[in-house]
Amino acid sequence: MQRTAVEGASFTQVELDAWRGFLRTYATLVRELDEELTEQHALPLSSYDVLVQLDEAPEGRLRMSHLADAVLLSRSGLSRLVTRLADQGLLERVDCTNDARGQFAAITDAGRGRLAEARVTHRAGVRERFLDRLGERDQRQLAKVWGRLLDPR
Amino acid sequence: MQRTAVEGASFTQVELDAWRGFLRTYATLVRELDEELTEQHALPLSSYDVLVQLDEAPEGRLRMSHLADAVLLSRSGLSRLVTRLADQGLLERVDCTNDARGQFAAITDAGRGRLAEARVTHRAGVRERFLDRLGERDQRQLAKVWGRLLDPR
Repeated sequence: MQRTAVEGASFTQVELDAWRGFLRTYATLVRELDEELTEQHALPLSSYDVLVQLDEAPEGRLRMSHLADAVLLSRSGLSRLVTRLADQGLLERVDCTNDARGQFAAITDAGRGRLAEARVTHRAGVRERFLDRLGERDQRQLAKVWGRLLDPR
Repeated sequence: MQRTAVEGASFTQVELDAWRGFLRTYATLVRELDEELTEQHALPLSSYDVLVQLDEAPEGRLRMSHLADAVLLSRSGLSRLVTRLADQGLLERVDCTNDARGQFAAITDAGRGRLAEARVTHRAGVRERFLDRLGERDQRQLAKVWGRLLDPR
């Protein structure tokens, strides 16, 4: 089997194609979806992701540490991002006086409204660039692969 | 087919599993690989990625704008990242006096040395968390899927 001429437990061409393709596909799709949301709704994908997580949480709120875990795109700068979204009125920081474990972020009505608009654009973008190019059989196959990678036991 | 009860062109459960699993798998793997490289080599994954791109480029150098396109992980903060890697002696900024299109980054011998060490750890990590859990048949299938998503024509 062909191996690249580098030291270490090097990868075969198929392994490289599977792994680098994964990184490249993610980078490309996220870049395009981010540009689309930013241009059409002034809502970068990382902000969209934060609003989605809050929208889907009970009572529309999450402890900051849970929000950091839930956000799929990037944990870096989450605190600054939350501040920015609060300044725009899309979420609120809520102190929980009964709970020493700190602050919550809660989506506002304005946040839900903006999310609903952006969601139409984002879903169409994901459909066009990802789902429609796969078809249902490949979608099922991918879902199985993610399951195996995320929960290998 | 079951659809989630939200407005817009909503996703079926299979579509959700395929798309969200993709995001979640990427986030999980990148987080784990980043922690591993940072702990063992004081080299975050974004820095590793920059050194890989330079190492594979002719003469070990790339124009900054090309480097920004080549980096798969994140374009944000690339300039600051390059400054940090230059401060550590892992790469150099090179001005090209004949070329108005600006600066290059070039990997140093120290950079190639650090990369070679980190590469052993990173390859083992990718193998353990991704390649070994798939097997060759799934790797081929994935490679085909990435091809279709990245170049649908």
